[in-house]
Amino acid sequence: MGATMKDIARETGLGLATISSYLNGGNVREKNRIKIEEAIEKLHFEVNEVARGLKTNRTKTIGIILPELNNIFFSEIITAAEDLLRSHGYATMICDCRSDVKREEEAAEFLLHRRVDGLIMMPTGAEKKVFDRFRKSGRPVVLIDRRMENGDCDCVLVDNEGAAQNAVKRLMKKGHKKIGMITGPDNVYTARERQRGYELAIQESSKARSAQQSDLKGKTDRTDTKLLADGNYTIAGGAKAMRKLYEDNPDMTAVFISNYEMTVGAMMEINDLGIKVPEELSVIGFDNMDFARAVVPRLTIVTQPTEEIGQAAANLLLSHLEDKDETSDKTSDKIETTETIWLKTGFVEGESVADIS
Amino acid sequence: MGATMKDIARETGLGLATISSYLNGGNVREKNRIKIEEAIEKLHFEVNEVARGLKTNRTKTIGIILPELNNIFFSEIITAAEDLLRSHGYATMICDCRSDVKREEEAAEFLLHRRVDGLIMMPTGAEKKVFDRFRKSGRPVVLIDRRMENGDCDCVLVDNEGAAQNAVKRLMKKGHKKIGMITGPDNVYTARERQRGYELAIQESSKARSAQQSDLKGKTDRTDTKLLADGNYTIAGGAKAMRKLYEDNPDMTAVFISNYEMTVGAMMEINDLGIKVPEELSVIGFDNMDFARAVVPRLTIVTQPTEEIGQAAANLLLSHLEDKDETSDKTSDKIETTETIWLKTGFVEGESVADIS
Repeated sequence: MGATMKDIARETGLGLATISSYLNGGNVREKNRIKIEEAIEKLHFEVNEVARGLKTNRTKTIGIILPELNNIFFSEIITAAEDLLRSHGYATMICDCRSDVKREEEAAEFLLHRRVDGLIMMPTGAEKKVFDRFRKSGRPVVLIDRRMENGDCDCVLVDNEGAAQNAVKRLMKKGHKKIGMITGPDNVYTARERQRGYELAIQESSKARSAQQSDLKGKTDRTDTKLLADGNYTIAGGAKAMRKLYEDNPDMTAVFISNYEMTVGAMMEINDLGIKVPEELSVIGFDNMDFARAVVPRLTIVTQPTEEIGQAAANLLLSHLEDKDETSDKTSDKIETTETIWLKTGFVEGESVADIS
Repeated sequence: MGATMKDIARETGLGLATISSYLNGGNVREKNRIKIEEAIEKLHFEVNEVARGLKTNRTKTIGIILPELNNIFFSEIITAAEDLLRSHGYATMICDCRSDVKREEEAAEFLLHRRVDGLIMMPTGAEKKVFDRFRKSGRPVVLIDRRMENGDCDCVLVDNEGAAQNAVKRLMKKGHKKIGMITGPDNVYTARERQRGYELAIQESSKARSAQQSDLKGKTDRTDTKLLADGNYTIAGGAKAMRKLYEDNPDMTAVFISNYEMTVGAMMEINDLGIKVPEELSVIGFDNMDFARAVVPRLTIVTQPTEEIGQAAANLLLSHLEDKDETSDKTSDKIETTETIWLKTGFVEGESVADIS
C-alpha cells in the first residue's frame, strides 16, 4: 500500500485541508507547496486520480474522436489541442475511428463510460445522436473541421468554400479555363464546401464571360462534371481520380486537389503518367508545407491553420468546463449557447502553376 | 441518477451475476446477451468504468508515451497497437512528450496517477527511472523502436544497424565511393544503430580493398567524419545537414538519410540547391512509401514494418496483463521475464540511385 494524504500531513506538519487543496490544484503558499512536493517525492506518494474522479465527478480527461490518427492534418491539430489541455491539467484520450460511422459511435460510447469531462470530435458521419448523449449529460462537445447539419454544437471551422474558390480563381487569372478538381467524399462537410467553392468560381467566370458576349447572355454554364473526380480523401483515391481526369479531359490545363492525401496520390499518378508540372499541367494542392517544398517543382497549395484550430477547440471546451465549475457541480446541466469559430486558410505560392494567358 | 445493474436485472429477469459477467466481458449465453443489450439500450444504462476500475484495480487503459504524435512513423505504429488493444477492451491514453525528457517524465507520472494498467513507450531520453516506477508497481512496460541501455525491459525493435549497412552496401555496388550520411541525434538509440551500420559498411569495403591491394594491407580506413552530418531527426535539421554535406564534399556522389523527417528536409534542400537526382547525387531515404512514390524521381528507401511493430508491442503487453490476471490480482507482482522482438526492415527500389560503376 502506498503513502496516503495522512502520511503527507504527518511528514509536512500541515493540515489535511492544505494538502487536499494542493492536490486539487488550489492555492497553497509557496513554502507549503515546496514542503508538500518534497514529502510526495520522499514518500513516493501517488495521487489516485481514479478515486478522485469518483469524488469530484470529474475525471479531468477529455475525449478526442477523429477519423484517422494516421493523418498529418489531424495529428497537427490534436498536438496543439493536447498541449493547451495539458497545461490546464487535462489528459486526453484519443480514439481513432478509421472514418467508420459504427466505430465512431462505439468510440463515443466508450468515452462516455470512461466519464470524460468533454469531447473534441472531428465527425466522420452525420449522426447527431453520437454526441447528443454527451450533451444530454452536460458534457461539452466541440466539433472540429466538419460541421453537423442541423447540429447546434460548438465548432471550429475554416472557410473551405472561400479557400477553394480563391484557388480556382488564381488558376483562372493565369489563363486556365479547363480546370479539373479532385473532390472528397459527398458525405463529408469539408468536401462539399470545397466543391461548392470550385463551382462558384466556375459559375462566376462564365457569368462574366456571358456579360461580355451578348449572344451568350443569360446562358450560364453549369459545371462540366467530367472535370470533377472523387478521390475519397485518400492517397489511392487521389491517384485514381487523377488518372480519370487526365483520360477524360485531354484539354485540361490545371487541376485543383482538395486535400493532402489526395495531393500525394495525384502527384504519384502524375509521376507515373510522366506528366510535366507545370508545363503540361498546373497543380494546386492542399495542406502540408513540408511535402509541398520537397517535391519538384515546389507545389502551390492551400494551407490550413492547424495549430490555431487545435487551440481554438481546446479553448472553447475549457471555457465550457470552467463555466460549469462556476455555476454548479452537477453534470446534468444543459449547455445552451453554442459558438462557431471561423479561421482563415492560407495560400502558398510554389512553382506548380504555369501562366498560359 | 442513471440506471443501475439492478434495473437491468429487473428488466431482463436475469441474475446480477449474469449481468456482472456480461459487463466484465465474461461469457454469457447469446439470448441473455441480447436481452441485456436491449435493456441497456432501453434504460440508457452507462457502465461507470471509473467506479469499476476502483473495484477491480484495473482501469483497462494503456498509456502510450511517444516523442512526437505529429510523426507518421509513430502514428502508424500507434494506430496498429490501438486497434489490437481496443479489440481486447483496452482504451489508450496517448501522451506526446515532444522529444523532451522532462515532459516524458511528467507524462509517465501523469499516467501513473491515472492508474493505467500498462505502458507502451518510445523513449526519448535514456532515463531508466521513468519506467522503473511502473514496473515496480507491477505494471508492464513495452518499449518500441528504441532500447534503453541497461534497461532490462520488453521491447520491439527493428534491425536498424543491418538496414543501414545494407542500404550503404547497395550504393557501393552501384559504384559509389564517397557516400554521405545524414545522422540522427547521438542520444537516440536508433540513430546510433543506423550510424554504426553505415560505418560497418564503409569499414568492410575498405578492408576488402586493402586485402586486394597488398600495399595497403593492415591500414583500415576510418570513417571520414566530413561525410557525416547530424540532422537531429527533424525536417529542418535534415535540410541543414544536406547543405553541409554538399558544401563540405564536392566529390560526394550519394547520400543515405536515416529517417523520414530528415529525408523530407534533405529533398527540400536538394530542390533549393537545384541538384539533379540521381544524375548529380544518388539518394536513399528512410520510411514512408507514399512520400517516396510522390516525388520525382521516385525515392529508393528503407522501410520499417510499422503495423507489425504496433501489433507486436500490443501483443507483448497483453500477454503480461493476462499472465497477471491468471496468477494474482495484486498489482505489486514484479514482472521478471523480459522479451525482445526483432522485426525486419524492407527496402524499396525507386529511381533515385544512379549506377556509376
